[in-house]
Amino acid sequence: MRAGIWLIGARGSVATTSVVGALALRAGLTDPVGCVTAHPDMNSAALPGFGDLRFGGHDVTTGPLAKKAEQLAAAGVVPARLVQALESDLDAVDADLRHAPEGATQAETAALIARDLTDFRTRHRLDRVVVVNVSSTEAAPAEHPAHAGLDALAAALAEPGDVLPPSSLYAYAAFSAGCPYVDFTPSTGARLPALAELAAQQGLPYAGHDGKTGETLLKSVLAPMFAMRNLDVRTWSGVNLLGGGDGANLVDPGANAAKSVSKQRVLRETLGYAPQGDTRIDYVADIGDFKTSWDLVTFAGFLGTGMCLQFTWQGCDSALAAPLVLDLARITLAAHEAGRGGPLEQLAYFFKDPMGDVDHALHAQWETLRTFVAGLGAEAGAGGGR
Amino acid sequence: MRAGIWLIGARGSVATTSVVGALALRAGLTDPVGCVTAHPDMNSAALPGFGDLRFGGHDVTTGPLAKKAEQLAAAGVVPARLVQALESDLDAVDADLRHAPEGATQAETAALIARDLTDFRTRHRLDRVVVVNVSSTEAAPAEHPAHAGLDALAAALAEPGDVLPPSSLYAYAAFSAGCPYVDFTPSTGARLPALAELAAQQGLPYAGHDGKTGETLLKSVLAPMFAMRNLDVRTWSGVNLLGGGDGANLVDPGANAAKSVSKQRVLRETLGYAPQGDTRIDYVADIGDFKTSWDLVTFAGFLGTGMCLQFTWQGCDSALAAPLVLDLARITLAAHEAGRGGPLEQLAYFFKDPMGDVDHALHAQWETLRTFVAGLGAEAGAGGGR
Amino acid sequence: MRAGIWLIGARGSVATTSVVGALALRAGLTDPVGCVTAHPDMNSAALPGFGDLRFGGHDVTTGPLAKKAEQLAAAGVVPARLVQALESDLDAVDADLRHAPEGATQAETAALIARDLTDFRTRHRLDRVVVVNVSSTEAAPAEHPAHAGLDALAAALAEPGDVLPPSSLYAYAAFSAGCPYVDFTPSTGARLPALAELAAQQGLPYAGHDGKTGETLLKSVLAPMFAMRNLDVRTWSGVNLLGGGDGANLVDPGANAAKSVSKQRVLRETLGYAPQGDTRIDYVADIGDFKTSWDLVTFAGFLGTGMCLQFTWQGCDSALAAPLVLDLARITLAAHEAGRGGPLEQLAYFFKDPMGDVDHALHAQWETLRTFVAGLGAEAGAGGGR
Amino acid sequence: MRAGIWLIGARGSVATTSVVGALALRAGLTDPVGCVTAHPDMNSAALPGFGDLRFGGHDVTTGPLAKKAEQLAAAGVVPARLVQALESDLDAVDADLRHAPEGATQAETAALIARDLTDFRTRHRLDRVVVVNVSSTEAAPAEHPAHAGLDALAAALAEPGDVLPPSSLYAYAAFSAGCPYVDFTPSTGARLPALAELAAQQGLPYAGHDGKTGETLLKSVLAPMFAMRNLDVRTWSGVNLLGGGDGANLVDPGANAAKSVSKQRVLRETLGYAPQGDTRIDYVADIGDFKTSWDLVTFAGFLGTGMCLQFTWQGCDSALAAPLVLDLARITLAAHEAGRGGPLEQLAYFFKDPMGDVDHALHAQWETLRTFVAGLGAEAGAGGGR
Repeated sequence: MRAGIWLIGARGSVATTSVVGALALRAGLTDPVGCVTAHPDMNSAALPGFGDLRFGGHDVTTGPLAKKAEQLAAAGVVPARLVQALESDLDAVDADLRHAPEGATQAETAALIARDLTDFRTRHRLDRVVVVNVSSTEAAPAEHPAHAGLDALAAALAEPGDVLPPSSLYAYAAFSAGCPYVDFTPSTGARLPALAELAAQQGLPYAGHDGKTGETLLKSVLAPMFAMRNLDVRTWSGVNLLGGGDGANLVDPGANAAKSVSKQRVLRETLGYAPQGDTRIDYVADIGDFKTSWDLVTFAGFLGTGMCLQFTWQGCDSALAAPLVLDLARITLAAHEAGRGGPLEQLAYFFKDPMGDVDHALHAQWETLRTFVAGLGAEAGAGGGR
Repeated sequence: MRAGIWLIGARGSVATTSVVGALALRAGLTDPVGCVTAHPDMNSAALPGFGDLRFGGHDVTTGPLAKKAEQLAAAGVVPARLVQALESDLDAVDADLRHAPEGATQAETAALIARDLTDFRTRHRLDRVVVVNVSSTEAAPAEHPAHAGLDALAAALAEPGDVLPPSSLYAYAAFSAGCPYVDFTPSTGARLPALAELAAQQGLPYAGHDGKTGETLLKSVLAPMFAMRNLDVRTWSGVNLLGGGDGANLVDPGANAAKSVSKQRVLRETLGYAPQGDTRIDYVADIGDFKTSWDLVTFAGFLGTGMCLQFTWQGCDSALAAPLVLDLARITLAAHEAGRGGPLEQLAYFFKDPMGDVDHALHAQWETLRTFVAGLGAEAGAGGGR
Repeated sequence: MRAGIWLIGARGSVATTSVVGALALRAGLTDPVGCVTAHPDMNSAALPGFGDLRFGGHDVTTGPLAKKAEQLAAAGVVPARLVQALESDLDAVDADLRHAPEGATQAETAALIARDLTDFRTRHRLDRVVVVNVSSTEAAPAEHPAHAGLDALAAALAEPGDVLPPSSLYAYAAFSAGCPYVDFTPSTGARLPALAELAAQQGLPYAGHDGKTGETLLKSVLAPMFAMRNLDVRTWSGVNLLGGGDGANLVDPGANAAKSVSKQRVLRETLGYAPQGDTRIDYVADIGDFKTSWDLVTFAGFLGTGMCLQFTWQGCDSALAAPLVLDLARITLAAHEAGRGGPLEQLAYFFKDPMGDVDHALHAQWETLRTFVAGLGAEAGAGGGR
Repeated sequence: MRAGIWLIGARGSVATTSVVGALALRAGLTDPVGCVTAHPDMNSAALPGFGDLRFGGHDVTTGPLAKKAEQLAAAGVVPARLVQALESDLDAVDADLRHAPEGATQAETAALIARDLTDFRTRHRLDRVVVVNVSSTEAAPAEHPAHAGLDALAAALAEPGDVLPPSSLYAYAAFSAGCPYVDFTPSTGARLPALAELAAQQGLPYAGHDGKTGETLLKSVLAPMFAMRNLDVRTWSGVNLLGGGDGANLVDPGANAAKSVSKQRVLRETLGYAPQGDTRIDYVADIGDFKTSWDLVTFAGFLGTGMCLQFTWQGCDSALAAPLVLDLARITLAAHEAGRGGPLEQLAYFFKDPMGDVDHALHAQWETLRTFVAGLGAEAGAGGGR
């Protein structure tokens, strides 16, 4: 399969780290540490190779990708030696990045986005292209009656004014251009009835929401532990300190609220009840991409005896997210090829706020994913050579 | 089933908390929080009721159980109101506790132990009695040729001198008296070929080793998390500070070494490699039963970026262990009734250092246990009413 | 000196713990651990004895003090054996507690408060009475022109409506009755020009604000450490989780804001610049009085190398505050006797948000306090017998 | 003053970071963050400028300094841009580094060391040279009768065999060559009566021991805080995880013991009693120079209520040590010039295990140091221009 990834927010930290990593894997300069699809249990011939992915994308900012990569190297996110070695490859990717278009109506903007996608596919003779949203988190959008059905949406988009938030407009454009769509952010993305209708009509898979990279990843194994031990979790309070672009954006109360809700869902779903406590997100510039989160869990054991667990997670958000972006692209592309359409609930493993009524325990999500990926491989094998 | 538990170390903190808890459950004064067999997924009619368990045991110390319970209440391990309410019940259990016997030879000692067990069973007309070791951790014993076979062992025990460490002598006596044996400690217990031979001959099940109550429990969910995310764990270093009887005992380098090895096994088995770092155990009297452990995990993600996780666990060891003691007794008694003999590898969920070549990930152990318990219920149902 | 303390919020956790402690000290049932004035360097014959203090107070709630003390014992704040031993002493104090009065105007209310104070002083033939505010934190009050001068204030108080927040009305009443006033809370208290005028006119000392019991205490030694090492503190972010009455009250954004500002002041004043970051306060009922706070400090060292310090403080707020309430009462009473009037800036050691332009480093505040207390002793000695 | 520093262990991490930093300061490429003598309160015209220090030294290893600096840059200890900018300056320093000499007797070795020192002084026409030991920690040496007096020592050194540990032999050589000596390590150094005699005879100052860079620095402000609040510290347990050269060396039980004793001294001296608990040091290669230490402090407050403080310090040891090396050199050189001889107890601020019966509270040490440095300045001023 000749495959491409089109990144929304293509000049951001996550996107740039993904590109640097994929180029480094292609050049044999690194190992796929942190890539789930490199795990022996997830191996499948149905997945396009890491090195076979071609990158393009939209962004609202400009400035060369190699420059951004150098900044990430200075911040310790990626090794400086890789950025130096890959400078010309990064410049080549730059040639496939486009400024985010803006039409007179949202329908026009969507058409411009879709044209960039089809141009990219044609230019590089790609079999398929997956669109992955790694841009900044949006505030929760206002509801609109046109969200309920495709016809109403198409009509409303042709009028002046904003009907869809940007993430949903990109999903609309992706589906229109025959591309699957993955949302790595908590933004709305494809989660509207009208967009589900469009995806179904086009036979396209989509996945989301909100990549599970740090604190929530820990919750997805620790909450099941408490549940399996029949312990009574009273409080689960956390604070996330982060700098970088996403941190600055999350100072916006709307975006913050969207993210915080997404982060507590795993507790309620895994424990069967919601412990006291909140998840706070604070912007701290000096911390940069190395998010630091602290969680306090108080719980009662046998005879009501009170105990507690604390943890501090110091993780580099972009370095945790980037390999998952590659994983999601590989799996979604293979799912598309295997003819799977609609919401990929089997990819809950990757997300804080997964689609569907799924198990939130990490090990259960892992089993579901393993089975799904193996199934793609079986079909690929059965369906004959590529 | 009329069932009994015979506790080795019956006047210690874990044993006393187990007894207080079982009596409180019988009296309807508490809920089975922390009891795994009270989880809906583990429910089985084959298990004897929490309130149906009758307690006896051996100890080398004396002093009334109610006194020990008051001390635990003062230390915050059990609620004072329960101890007050259960005073006469505790005195009744006291009547079934015996001083650890000592014969001229280990064979004689074993016979005295076995007589106490059969007397207990007869006195209360019990169908079966499980022996559970919750005494202090022993140092690793010297090897002895008579450990290799039952005949040689029987002959050697009849001679003066010590052939078996205490935990193994209790296992020998338990098996001789037709009782299953569970070892909640890292001591040798039934883990000798000669004892396996005896258990097989008697058709008796046994289980162990070293109850998984705190730091290792966390490792058994966190290490699989790192493995599933294909992250590269470089270091896993921990320190355990604990007071109380077990803490004082673990200052002994022999016992400490036995425990530390047991605690690191889960990492090697789950990750497939052994990260750098040790697990230290230090005695700190002021901390008492509320063990505090700190772990530092350093790991490399995508492109080698270094990150870290720290956690602090402040758990009350006896309150964590006691419900598991009741769980283990219930399941082992039901296994005995269902005719299961030999090492119960399906109970790995409960142990730091489980028997057999088993999966060390908690969720896998949970599934194995769930299936095992359900199987016991099916057989019990099939075998006819009780 | 026959001395009394009148507590505002007399049935709250801090007040009750102070009373239990003072009674226990008088009865010889405990040592003055946590009392600064029991430190050898602070010893002074000028201070009234711990056991000589007589207690009275106002509260808006009712319910016997002994009941509240039992609740604190159940929560682990004070030992149950003390509460049992002191039951009749607590009942005796109850007889000196009064319901917070409410007049038709604030002038009337103040007169009723003052009458309760003078009645208490007369009833027990006390030489002096200090009023200490340990009630819940108020929201920052609206400004009012009558705050600027005593005459305008007296006139405004006689009109209907609220001119002063409760803490300031109590300060007004205390000064009117010839009593010094200490504010252990972040509320406004005596910090208004009109009240300073009244205190000066009456020759009365007063002190505040906001007892320094936990996280800020740590800041007051750690921030000077960073300053003395010439390290560059970039971020100081903290979160405070607390239950209990004060926690519930601080959910109110107004009160929370007052407290948070007070908590960051020490950094700016000690470092000479304000690092990034905030101090959050969250209410978590299960935690009760055992406040848990986590702070992350990131700093740059030589050549800009980034490093960090984290700490977690798990402290019982009432048990930390109560001995300081006794200390403040002893010192303020002695200051009053020694003829010191006006704001006691020398007591900055005790407060998060001290009065005056003072040093915020704990060791400097300690030296100032030590000198001040020694001075009171010298005068007392010079002034002759009491 | 034309001044030089001669480093023992000149190619190690601390030495290299010191050299890079001093060169960067001279070139105006960095600010003196982390340098205590750059604090406004410590400013003194008596101190030689940071940029005026010329470097030489001994080491047992070879390999260019610029190479070592590059390794430190790759590990995040120093900025890569500085190393690149200073490459030729580092090569120039290389020309003044010598391989540690080895004579047939220790007397011969000392003479060779002294000759290297005087050559360095002569070659660069320096007024004075201070010798600073930043080599790996030695195990505690065997006692020897010749340590007691200078004559006996001189005689014993002329015989075959080792009388002095390396750090003391360097001190002997330094004093013989008229150079003051500073020991930044816990090794014996100048702490022998015979060496004190030699220093006195030569009128030379010396200082030590064991630079206070991390966990002990925190103890020196936190222990006084507990003391000033009259709180009862029950336990102070810590673990230090560190990689790098010093970590590997401290695996040696002898060196580890020396360091651990040094680290607990501050508690006993500041609190007036020794709380329970130990300080552990473990080698963890992956952590490298970024030492991570965790401390648990349990304490009792008013009425015996138990509470706790934990902290985690993640500090870059070399980046913390290097500016103090420069500070110590500056102050000791100025002290030498001002005619101060003997042990510089006023420099306790810098050391875990200071010389003399001094206060261990950081703020008291700061005051002592400030006064001392100001005194040097006064004398310098009085003594006339330079």
